[in-house]
This record gives sequence, structure tokens and C-alpha cells, in this order.
Amino acid sequence: MSEGRRITVIAGGVGAAKFLRGLLTVHPNQLVTAVVNVADDFRLHGLAISPDLDTVTYTLSGLVNPDTGWGRVDESWRVKDELARLGGQTWFNLGDLDLALHLYRTQRLSEGASLTEVTLELCDKLGIEATLLPASNEEIRTQLKVQNQGWVDFQDYFVAQQHNVVIEDLRFEGIEAANPGPEVISSLEKSDVIVIAPSNPFVSVKPVLEIPGVVDVLRERRTQVVAISPIVGGLALKGPASRMLEELGFERNSVGIASLYRDFAGTLVIDQKDSALTSQVQSEGMRAAVTDTIMDTPERAAALAQTTLAQISLFGEEKK
Amino acid sequence: MSEGRRITVIAGGVGAAKFLRGLLTVHPNQLVTAVVNVADDFRLHGLAISPDLDTVTYTLSGLVNPDTGWGRVDESWRVKDELARLGGQTWFNLGDLDLALHLYRTQRLSEGASLTEVTLELCDKLGIEATLLPASNEEIRTQLKVQNQGWVDFQDYFVAQQHNVVIEDLRFEGIEAANPGPEVISSLEKSDVIVIAPSNPFVSVKPVLEIPGVVDVLRERRTQVVAISPIVGGLALKGPASRMLEELGFERNSVGIASLYRDFAGTLVIDQKDSALTSQVQSEGMRAAVTDTIMDTPERAAALAQTTLAQISLFGEEKK
Repeated sequence: MSEGRRITVIAGGVGAAKFLRGLLTVHPNQLVTAVVNVADDFRLHGLAISPDLDTVTYTLSGLVNPDTGWGRVDESWRVKDELARLGGQTWFNLGDLDLALHLYRTQRLSEGASLTEVTLELCDKLGIEATLLPASNEEIRTQLKVQNQGWVDFQDYFVAQQHNVVIEDLRFEGIEAANPGPEVISSLEKSDVIVIAPSNPFVSVKPVLEIPGVVDVLRERRTQVVAISPIVGGLALKGPASRMLEELGFERNSVGIASLYRDFAGTLVIDQKDSALTSQVQSEGMRAAVTDTIMDTPERAAALAQTTLAQISLFGEEKK
Repeated sequence: MSEGRRITVIAGGVGAAKFLRGLLTVHPNQLVTAVVNVADDFRLHGLAISPDLDTVTYTLSGLVNPDTGWGRVDESWRVKDELARLGGQTWFNLGDLDLALHLYRTQRLSEGASLTEVTLELCDKLGIEATLLPASNEEIRTQLKVQNQGWVDFQDYFVAQQHNVVIEDLRFEGIEAANPGPEVISSLEKSDVIVIAPSNPFVSVKPVLEIPGVVDVLRERRTQVVAISPIVGGLALKGPASRMLEELGFERNSVGIASLYRDFAGTLVIDQKDSALTSQVQSEGMRAAVTDTIMDTPERAAALAQTTLAQISLFGEEKK
């Protein structure tokens, strides 16, 4: 029935990676594309680091550290320990195996390859049959206005300060002038289902959607768009999504998510713990689907993927 | 007698590092400055790599691999092995511990620090009391004209091709516009003895001397300048110095070295195996000093340093 459908997933890091891993167990991998946020990317020690692309790449190739959901399994820290001895910056965890990927990417970029090309090379090398696309090959940088600090870079907020601060605003430097990466728009246009992964709506999804042209495709194809709420019982499973909802003036639950996504997504998948919110989500103008969204095992991630895809065949295409 | 003298050493990599280590065992370290070649420096994987500075730094801090004379002792290769798996460039050996230093340097440079500042920070951190000065903070790049290949970068010639090719010419891109690094000229001017280390005359010494202003100081202070021949019995102890002499039209022995250095160095230290060349060196207009120049133990390096310094107190200052 649905085996031949093309799926494009708008993805951040850990949550999206788990969802994608589940999706790839239930759907032909060649038909799956992930458009991955690059606004967390940064340079450290001269190296081009793309945290969300790395997390998705490691997860889909089976190399991810299962305890953290990011970084490499069987990682070692010989370089980092020596860097600490030399007095270098060690606030960002760079493992030895992880470093190899950053060295590869940085070298290829310095040779003139695009981030898209490098990403596809790595997928090929690591046996990933789905297509990972950087949302843009141009520099977009998330910055957060932190209470009493002013604007700070994303990694400062997220890693160095461990998002234990109040934010007042956010912006994506460079996004107005950025182009979507190659194949991003055509992938969204050709997809039978567009999934917004259970990623942080502000710092993972928004800096993909606000790249000129991206959200317009979703608006036009709203009935094909299904989003998965990253909030369960008022809390994000990982990261600062729920407190950011409140700090930025939204309801701290899936209704807040619905109010953010309703203009360009027809369906919101919410957790069974939040089934009482169904009518409020519907009041925002979205269809609500209730299921288990906690992906604590690959099997549950696969089940969530199946349920998510089923929303579109049930409500989207067929009712169009 | 000579304990209070200021010494400046013009230095390349392994040979210079061994000489300096010997010198520091026989002379107050605070009075020793090394002006180190930077024309081998390059970027790889986005990292700023300074091979000669690294070799000198590792040697003087006791961290060097004693088997190779460069790189780190107790090195591991976890990053490099993974980089190979990803299909990355691995022609240049980047060990895990070595990488930490490159990360440190690259980060500090990206923050606006000069190479001089970074070098002094690393010396401080690693307990080196001598002063290491990059010859320049500007980009100078050695290129070699290789038979049937045209111009190639130094690391391509030296590491990737292991200098097993015939060279026809060499040049130092950027050198005409480069300034000597901070303190380089004043260190040479204030020194009681200027030593040209037993480094490759073409690719280590020449790209220091040809930085505008440097060789002029040596010419003016020629009687204070003592060079150590890197050629013993017609062969370089390490690297391509002897074949480069021949390929570039010089005698393949210490007489060839004398003909290169005679305008700005008053004395040439040659190996005892080459004592028969003494009169030919003198015919080139240099004083010749004969001793054991093979630094296969720290003690022999110290003895060579003492003999070298003695040349100036015997012939230089006192006869001026």
C-alpha cells in the first residue's frame, strides 16, 4: 500500500535520528530523505562541525553512542585529554573517532566540495541508503538572546551553558540570504509524505523552515505534512524545547506545538499521555493523532514511524 | 666565561631540535632563542600545522618520539585510522597527541592570536625556558620544481613523495612581502653568537634568511655567525640535503655548504670525517672547525653545542 511512497523528514539531532532509524526499518530506505538542520553548525579549532548531521549520520550507520544518542560508540578521548593539558578549549566534547569525521569534512570543504557533497560521500562510505541533505550549504547560525547576557551563539547556550538559562528571543543569522541546499525543495515537492520530526521546534525545525522557499512548499502541501510533537506530558524528552515554549510565550505542551505548526502542517502526532489535549490541538486547526511517541527502543521508533506514515494515507492523500 | 652570552639559533626541524636540546644542557636556557622556519607550514583538514616548530617544541619539552626525531612519544593513531576508514587523506601522519597541538594552535589563530603568541604559550605550558620564535607570522610557502612535475608544495615533495624525486629549482611563495616575526631581528642583533643549525640549507635555512632584513643582520655580524654543516661524508644524516646540493649545482659536501653560507657566516663546523675538506672550506672564505657533528646521543649534541659556541669566543668576538 504505502511501500512506494517518498518520504522527506525535516530533522534536527537526537530525536530526529531515532525517528529516522525507526522509519528506515519499516520503509524502503532509498525512498527516505532527511533535510537536516545546519544552524547549529560551527567552527572549533578550525574544524567544520555539523552536530545534527553528525548525530543523524552516526545513528543511521549504527555508530552512535547508545547511551547519549549523539557521538560515537566506543569513543576515546586521547586528543581531548591532551588538548586540556595544553590549555585548549574542551567545553565541546570532541572524541577521537568523532574528530576523524570533522577532519574529513573540513578537508573536503577546503577543497571546494559542498556540505551536501561531503554528507553524501559520508553516507556512501558508511552504508546509509537514505539520502541526508543539509538544509543549506550556506552559513546559518542560530543565536539566542539570553536573559542578562544578550545574544549568544547556539553552542555557547546549548553546550557550554547547558541551556540552563532563560531565553528571550532567537534569530538565525544569515538565513534571509541563504538558499536551500541542492535537492531540498525538489525533495519536499516530490514527497508523498513530509514529516516534521520530534525535534526542537525553535532551534531545529524553525531554522530549516525559515530558509527562503522551504515553508512555502509545506504550506502548499499542508495535507501531506505530519509533525510529531517533541513534548510529552509538558516536558521535552531531551533538551530545552519545553522551557523554550514557555519562555517564548507558547503553551508548554503539544497545543503550543500545534500553534507553531498549524499553518504548514495538517496533522500533529501527540503522545498517548497527552490524549486529553486532542481537542485543543484540533482547535488549533490540526488533525491530532495519538500514539506512543517515546522512542526508547528501535521497535517503538519503528511503530511511531508506521503510525506517522499512516496519518497521511488515512487523512491526507485520500481525502484530498 | 661564556655563560652569559646570548645565543640565537636559526633552526629547521629534526637536526636543529637535536642541536638545541644539546645547547640547552650546556647554556642558560633563558639566553637561548631559536628562530624557526615556517615555510613548511601548511593547512590540512583545516588545521594549521607547523612541522618545524612542532619538532623543536616536542624535542625541547621531552615529548618527541626518539625513534623518528619528530612527532610524539607514546603516540596513538585512533583518529588517523578512522579517517582512513572514511576515505580521508592520510598521507601526512597525524597522531592523536600531535593533533591536540594542532587543534590548540588553530583555535588560537582563529581567535586572532599570532603564531608567535601561540608558540610562546605552548613553550610556557610545556616548560620550555628557551624562546622559540617563528621566523615570520606571515604565510611563506616553500615550493619545489620537480623534474617532469613542475612546481609542487613542500609537503607533497617531502612527505607524500618522500623526496624521492629530482628537483630543479625552489621558491618561497610570499617571502618578498613577509615580515620577520616579532623579536626576530632584535634577537639576532642582540646575540653574542648566531648559530645556523645543521638543517637543510635550501628548505630550512634559506626560507628564514630570505625574509627581508634577516640575512642583512647576519652579513653585518658575520664574525659572530657560526654554521654547522648538515652534510657528513657527502650525505645528509636525514632528509634530501645532499642530493639537493647536487641537483641545484653545488658540491655535494661541506664545501658546497660553505659556498652557500660564506657571505653571511664566518665559521663552518664540519664533521671530523670531512677533515680533509678543511682547506677547501677555507678557500671559500670561511673558518673551518672540525669536530664530531653526529648527534646520536644528547651528550654528543651537548659537546657539539659547546664546540660551536667556542668558535666564536675563540675567533669571533675576541678577534673583532
